[in-house]
Amino acid sequence: MTFPAAEFRARTARMQAEMAAAEIDALLLTTAPDIYYVTGFLTRFWESPARPWFVLVPGAGDPLAVIPAIGAELMGRTWLADIRTWVSPNPDDEGVSLLAAAIAEHVPPSGRLGLPMGTETHLRMPLGDYLRLLPMIAPRAVVDGTGPVHRTREIKTEAEVARLREICRIAARAFDRVPDIAGPGRPLDAVFRDFQALCLSEGADWVSYVAGGAGPGGYGDVISPADARPLADGDLLMLDTGAVKDGYFCDFDRNWAIGRADDSLRRAHDTLFAATEAGIAAARPGATAEEVHGAIVARIRADGAEPLGGRLGHGLGLSLTEWPSLIPGDGTPLRAGTVLTIEPGLQIAPGRIMVHEENIVLREGGAELLSPRAPADLPVLR
Amino acid sequence: MTFPAAEFRARTARMQAEMAAAEIDALLLTTAPDIYYVTGFLTRFWESPARPWFVLVPGAGDPLAVIPAIGAELMGRTWLADIRTWVSPNPDDEGVSLLAAAIAEHVPPSGRLGLPMGTETHLRMPLGDYLRLLPMIAPRAVVDGTGPVHRTREIKTEAEVARLREICRIAARAFDRVPDIAGPGRPLDAVFRDFQALCLSEGADWVSYVAGGAGPGGYGDVISPADARPLADGDLLMLDTGAVKDGYFCDFDRNWAIGRADDSLRRAHDTLFAATEAGIAAARPGATAEEVHGAIVARIRADGAEPLGGRLGHGLGLSLTEWPSLIPGDGTPLRAGTVLTIEPGLQIAPGRIMVHEENIVLREGGAELLSPRAPADLPVLR
Repeated sequence: MTFPAAEFRARTARMQAEMAAAEIDALLLTTAPDIYYVTGFLTRFWESPARPWFVLVPGAGDPLAVIPAIGAELMGRTWLADIRTWVSPNPDDEGVSLLAAAIAEHVPPSGRLGLPMGTETHLRMPLGDYLRLLPMIAPRAVVDGTGPVHRTREIKTEAEVARLREICRIAARAFDRVPDIAGPGRPLDAVFRDFQALCLSEGADWVSYVAGGAGPGGYGDVISPADARPLADGDLLMLDTGAVKDGYFCDFDRNWAIGRADDSLRRAHDTLFAATEAGIAAARPGATAEEVHGAIVARIRADGAEPLGGRLGHGLGLSLTEWPSLIPGDGTPLRAGTVLTIEPGLQIAPGRIMVHEENIVLREGGAELLSPRAPADLPVLR
Repeated sequence: MTFPAAEFRARTARMQAEMAAAEIDALLLTTAPDIYYVTGFLTRFWESPARPWFVLVPGAGDPLAVIPAIGAELMGRTWLADIRTWVSPNPDDEGVSLLAAAIAEHVPPSGRLGLPMGTETHLRMPLGDYLRLLPMIAPRAVVDGTGPVHRTREIKTEAEVARLREICRIAARAFDRVPDIAGPGRPLDAVFRDFQALCLSEGADWVSYVAGGAGPGGYGDVISPADARPLADGDLLMLDTGAVKDGYFCDFDRNWAIGRADDSLRRAHDTLFAATEAGIAAARPGATAEEVHGAIVARIRADGAEPLGGRLGHGLGLSLTEWPSLIPGDGTPLRAGTVLTIEPGLQIAPGRIMVHEENIVLREGGAELLSPRAPADLPVLR
């Protein structure tokens, strides 16, 4: 297992304290990161949407698993003792009756079952099965359990921070080798492929996310797959990675000018470097997510540039993106142990943008960088 | 875009015919494969769970998208004309009011909105937002839309089969190079890393799934992450890949004996090779999924071996695993154009298993292999 049982016990105890405050008798978890967080059950098998997986965190005591039999051996190596299985797929009863029985054991009839149903969550089981479950566990109330999960997961333990630092360093070494794989004439899709291989060769377990862009004087967006267009002099290239080690993600990017760095690109890079510094400085315990957003926006505007809309940073950990969001209106108070991306972006010209991104962990005294800082000057690949 | 607009129009028309038969006025899609299938919107950005994405397929006419603004440029390059956006994340209204308005336009008050809620589905939006949506679209009925999606997606077009054949060939070339990266003394986690890099170097866009196992006389399970134990003489090694090209998955595996192939391994390999042949022969239009399962089980038992429980094959396409399932009780009639994995497994000894897997497309006359056939004799890596 990635962590000792004591780590999972401590996480569970913190979650149970949040559950008690929210008057939740048991919490039902259905997604890969939530279940890995409390159990240590790590597998890429989540890629198959065929089977639901359930973990129930009672108000006191250890979590229990209700899972397809194919996962019994792996779950048996975690710290969980109570593991109940069914042979899946079984369209007649996809674990629903087993789950209902487990809930009935741990939630009194007048009690409350918590289920993450708020922002940035989803229920990873067929909705039809959920609707079948409800009468089976009545009269128990089902209430929003997002808070206990988010408030617990958003404060990383030192063991988690060590994993996040490691995957950031792996990606940083891969970024350092980009001059070997990118330059004028090289197709963007080949660069994307080779960059993923670099992340693997530097020690990533797998690469769940690589995005980026390239275009003359800036890229058009940051979520499109790569096309086969060769990089050309005057292009701006960006690569963004969500590589994974022991289940933990990095999420930071780097920019390069191809052939030459025009003044508009250098100016945008300087502004974003400074805006990232401003975001890092503002990210302290006691500040709110929206205050960090405000600091980034102010620094971009101070240079006469226009920041991108949408969020300019977010939580990071077992998912590529986590709460809180650096947006206006997210008043989440930041605490020591929160891991964030600082992700300013600006429009260079209509339809041409640049983004920067770094990863930090909040300490009592301020932010500590997990990703090594991008170079202050825009590098040029020739 | 990966396919011309005519391809998506034809897919949509087939789905609309299924919708009409199910008396569904519009279908709400929320997952990456469902949305890519009708629109061509392909991005790894789905890895971020922060934002929901919605596509509505009306009973007639073109689909429309209700999506976060960050996806507007990419969706604008698809064949869709009606694209509605909001700046996301927005915890106050995560696209719900925009979606409700779109539904109200396309479903009459007495009509029915279809939502995939059956086996192998999930709703990729916060459950709380769904519960907020329901009164906004009342009195419209929400009904199970799984059938129209599954019956349409499970028959691959020739353009889809070409993509599936291509990713199978890419993975096959990577498998051919495994002797370069695996052998006695090589740690399993290094083999997993290198194998992913091989898939990329052979042309995969990304590698969403690699699993496998290694152990003396067989492996223990097929979903665990790799550990750092070096491969040793007498081990059986298996690698299974879900590599992706243009959004389409392969899902087949290969086995190797390390150092030497003991008789128990050779016998198991022979039985599984024959059971795979039996499954391929049984997979014809008109047969049912459970009949193919039965043919595989019978062939394994004919050798006096015990087949693994659970399913012994499944659909394949835009997800690593799709319906139908080769299990007892899945009476889905197989049709020409269905793409399947044939995946027999058996127990060699208590806690020691072996699995085989190939990918096929069903033609009127029988199955056509998409993955090149595994060698009839268990290869040995020295």
